[in-house]
Amino acid sequence: MRLKRKDLLGIAELERDELELLLSTAESFKEVSEREIKKVPTLRGRTIINLFYEASTRTRTSFEIAAKRMSADCINISVSTSSVVKGETLRDTAKNLEAMRPDCIVVRHSCSGTPAMLSRYLACPVVNAGDGAHEHPSQALLDMLTVKERLGGIDGIKISIIGDITHSRVARSNIYGFTKMGAEVTVAGPPTMLPPGIEKLGCRATTSMEDAIRGADVLMMLRIQSERQAEPLFPSVREYSRLYGLDEARLRAAKKDVLILHPGPINRGVEISPEVADGPYSLILDQVTNGVAVRMAIFYLLLGGAKEGLQEGVKA
Amino acid sequence: MRLKRKDLLGIAELERDELELLLSTAESFKEVSEREIKKVPTLRGRTIINLFYEASTRTRTSFEIAAKRMSADCINISVSTSSVVKGETLRDTAKNLEAMRPDCIVVRHSCSGTPAMLSRYLACPVVNAGDGAHEHPSQALLDMLTVKERLGGIDGIKISIIGDITHSRVARSNIYGFTKMGAEVTVAGPPTMLPPGIEKLGCRATTSMEDAIRGADVLMMLRIQSERQAEPLFPSVREYSRLYGLDEARLRAAKKDVLILHPGPINRGVEISPEVADGPYSLILDQVTNGVAVRMAIFYLLLGGAKEGLQEGVKA
Amino acid sequence: MRLKRKDLLGIAELERDELELLLSTAESFKEVSEREIKKVPTLRGRTIINLFYEASTRTRTSFEIAAKRMSADCINISVSTSSVVKGETLRDTAKNLEAMRPDCIVVRHSCSGTPAMLSRYLACPVVNAGDGAHEHPSQALLDMLTVKERLGGIDGIKISIIGDITHSRVARSNIYGFTKMGAEVTVAGPPTMLPPGIEKLGCRATTSMEDAIRGADVLMMLRIQSERQAEPLFPSVREYSRLYGLDEARLRAAKKDVLILHPGPINRGVEISPEVADGPYSLILDQVTNGVAVRMAIFYLLLGGAKEGLQEGVKA
Repeated sequence: MRLKRKDLLGIAELERDELELLLSTAESFKEVSEREIKKVPTLRGRTIINLFYEASTRTRTSFEIAAKRMSADCINISVSTSSVVKGETLRDTAKNLEAMRPDCIVVRHSCSGTPAMLSRYLACPVVNAGDGAHEHPSQALLDMLTVKERLGGIDGIKISIIGDITHSRVARSNIYGFTKMGAEVTVAGPPTMLPPGIEKLGCRATTSMEDAIRGADVLMMLRIQSERQAEPLFPSVREYSRLYGLDEARLRAAKKDVLILHPGPINRGVEISPEVADGPYSLILDQVTNGVAVRMAIFYLLLGGAKEGLQEGVKA
Repeated sequence: MRLKRKDLLGIAELERDELELLLSTAESFKEVSEREIKKVPTLRGRTIINLFYEASTRTRTSFEIAAKRMSADCINISVSTSSVVKGETLRDTAKNLEAMRPDCIVVRHSCSGTPAMLSRYLACPVVNAGDGAHEHPSQALLDMLTVKERLGGIDGIKISIIGDITHSRVARSNIYGFTKMGAEVTVAGPPTMLPPGIEKLGCRATTSMEDAIRGADVLMMLRIQSERQAEPLFPSVREYSRLYGLDEARLRAAKKDVLILHPGPINRGVEISPEVADGPYSLILDQVTNGVAVRMAIFYLLLGGAKEGLQEGVKA
Repeated sequence: MRLKRKDLLGIAELERDELELLLSTAESFKEVSEREIKKVPTLRGRTIINLFYEASTRTRTSFEIAAKRMSADCINISVSTSSVVKGETLRDTAKNLEAMRPDCIVVRHSCSGTPAMLSRYLACPVVNAGDGAHEHPSQALLDMLTVKERLGGIDGIKISIIGDITHSRVARSNIYGFTKMGAEVTVAGPPTMLPPGIEKLGCRATTSMEDAIRGADVLMMLRIQSERQAEPLFPSVREYSRLYGLDEARLRAAKKDVLILHPGPINRGVEISPEVADGPYSLILDQVTNGVAVRMAIFYLLLGGAKEGLQEGVKA
C-alpha cells in the first residue's frame, strides 16, 4: 500500500481517502512505540535525510525516531553545519543529495514552497516538515489522529483554531485537513492575525474568543511565535493573553468534554495557562506520541518497504 | 539484573552494593570494545536520547558509542539546535520527549539538579551526564573502575583529589564514591577552591600540595575550568601551576607506584605537566576506555535488556 | 583484501596499483547504492568517527552514508560542539578518541598535515577528508572513478584543472592521482592562483584558458573559494568569470565529447555557467554518486571487514 503521490508536501492537495489511509496506517504503527523492542525491519537499508534549515527539537527528533523505529538509516543535516553558507542553490543541494541515493528527504525551511521546489528536482519522496507560513502536514495529521482517537471520528465535529492564523503553517494544514474530513473549522484571533479571505479555505473566522470557544468539541491553541513576526501584531504579550489566552475561567464557557490541542512548544501563561495545558482535557502529549506514529506511516506509505517488513510492520 | 532505582542521578544516593554491581557489570562489558565486531544485541530497539545543554565531545561521544555498541538507537539533541531557545520549560521538554517513548534520557546541564528535576517528570530512566557543580556519576564510576583494575580493589586505598574542589562535579561524585567503597579521600587546593565544610562528605581537606601527595596511592588532578569561574580564584595560571600543578619534580615526593588520574580534557602545563600526563603512572586513557564500559553497564542495569541480549552481552 | 597502509592521508604516497585497487573496489560497491535495500553487513559492529573541524554537508554526509550502508556505527563530531574550545591539543583529542576504540577516524581540518599528525598518534586507520590546501584524497578517487567509467581508463587521457590551484587540495590530490594513472595533467588559472614550481608535480601549467581547454578530454573546474583567501587574488568575481569561467561559448573550443567535472559546491555563473553545469557533458552528479562508492571502498580496504561481509559486500 502506498500513497498515490511521490511526496507529502501539504494537506491541501490530498484527497480524503488519502488522509484516511495515512491515519489508519498511523494507528497501526502506534503500538510499535509501546513495545519493549520498538523496532520493525520495514525500512532496513533505506536512507532518510532530515534536511533542516530551521532549528527544531521536537519535529526533527520525531522524524528521526520514526525512521529508526522502522530500521532506516537517518542522516541529519542542519543548516548551520551545511554548505548552504557557501552559497549553493537549493536545487544544487537537492541534486547533490539525490546523487547519494537517499530514499526520502524530510525538509524544513523558513520559505514557503521550498519542499515543493525540492520535490520537482528529486526523484525520491520529499516530506514537508514545515515551510514558512505555508504547511506542516505531519502536524495536521497527528492532530487529526489525536482527535479521531478520542472522538471516534472527525466528521461533523467542531474545531476552533485560536491564535496567529496568518503566520501559522499549523493552522493552514489543519484547516485543510479537518474540513476535508468533514469537520466544521473556526479560526479565531485578533484582526491583525486573521488573514483576509481565510474563509475561502472553508472555515469560519471570528475575532471573538467567546464565539470560538462556545460549542467547540476541540480547541487548538496556537503558539505565539514572536520569532516569526517582523513587527508586533499586538500591543503586549499580556494583552494577547488576556484576550486570547486559554485559562480555566475561559474554559467554563466551553463544552464540558472539550479537547485541547497545542502544537508545542507551549508558552505557559501566554496562549495557554499551565492549569489548562496540564489539565484533564489537554491532549498535548498525546499529540507528540501520535507524531511518531504519523511519521512512521508517512515513511511507510511513501517508501513502500520490504514485503517482509510490510507484514511485520503492520502485524507483528 | 537491574539497579534498585529508576535513575542514575548521583553517587551520593547509591549503596555500596550498587556501586559494586555497576563496577562488576562494567568489567564484563569491557571486552566488547576489544572485539573485532564491537556489538551486542542487548538493547536492540531501545531509544536512548542524549540531551546535552552543555557542549561536550568526550562524554557525549562515550555515551553514544556505549549505546550503539549495545545496539540501541541513539538520538542526539544539543542545546543550540533545540527549542529551548523558544522558551519552553524544562518540564515541558521532558514531557514532550517522553511522549516519544524513549527508553532512557542522558542529560547534561549547567544547572545542578536538572537531571533530578527531569527524573521526577519522566517514567523512563534518567542518567546524569554532569549537572553544574553537583555530580557526574558516570565519571566517578569510570574512575573507580580504573583504580579497582590496577589496585585490585578500592577498600583502604588513599586518594587525593587536587584542584578546584568547589566547582567540580567530578570531585563531588568521586568523594562520595571512593569513601563509600572504603577509600581515604583527601581533597586539596588553594583556600579559594576548597568549599567550607567539605569534610562533612567524609574526606580530609588540605591546602598543602605536599600533604596531598605524600602517601597517596592515587592522585586525581582536576581540570582548571576557567570557563566555569565567574571571577578568578587565583592570581594567574602560572601561579596555580607552580603551587598545585603536578610535574615530575613534585612526583618525587609521591609513593613509588602512585597512579595518576585526570577526568580530561587536560590543560598541559597547567594542572599537569606533559611528562606526567604521558608518563608511566598516568591512567588517563584507561579512564576514557573504561568510560565506554561504565556507560554500557549503566544502560544495561537501568534498561534491563532482552534476555537473549543479556546472555550475549555478558558472555559472548 | 586490504591496502598496504594503515591510513589514507593523500594520493601523493599511493602506488598506482593501490589506486587501481581502490577504484575497482569502489566500482564493485556502486551497485549497493542502487539496490532497494542499500546495506551490506561488511562493517557491522565497527565504529567510524567523523571528526570535522570544518563545516561540510556533502563530504560528511557522503562518509556517513558510506559507513551506514556498510552497517558500521557512525559518530559525528563537529568542532562547534567539541572540547576543542576547551583548549585540548589535537594529540590529546586523538588519544582520547582512540581510547574509545573506534575502528576508523575520518578527519577534516583547515590545517594541512592534521590527518598525518593524527595518524601518528592513532593505531586505527585515519582517512583525510580534506586538510587545508594539502590533499583531499577521496575527492580525487571519485574524480578518477568518474573519468574511468566514462572513458574506459585514465591512461593517456588529457585533463585540465582550472581555477585557484594554489589553494586547492582537490587540485593537488588530482594532479597526483591522474599523473600516477598515466594521464597528462594541465593546470590553469590566473598567475596569482598558480603556485610557482607546480610543474614539479608532473603537470603542465598555463595562464591561458584557451590553452587549457584545447584538446582536453576532461575539464575540471574548481570552486572559487573566497572563504579561503586571506586577500583577493583577482579584481572581481566578474573579471574572474570572464577570463576563467566555463560557459557555452568557451566550450565550443573544446573537444566535442569533453567531460566536465567540478568538486562542488558550484558557484553558478562564476567558475561555471548554469548551461554547462547542467549540460550533457557535465558529470558533476556522477561524481557525487561515485563519492559514496569510493568512501565505501576506502572503509573496506582500510578496515577489512568480516569474511562473510566481504563476500556479501562484493557479490551480493
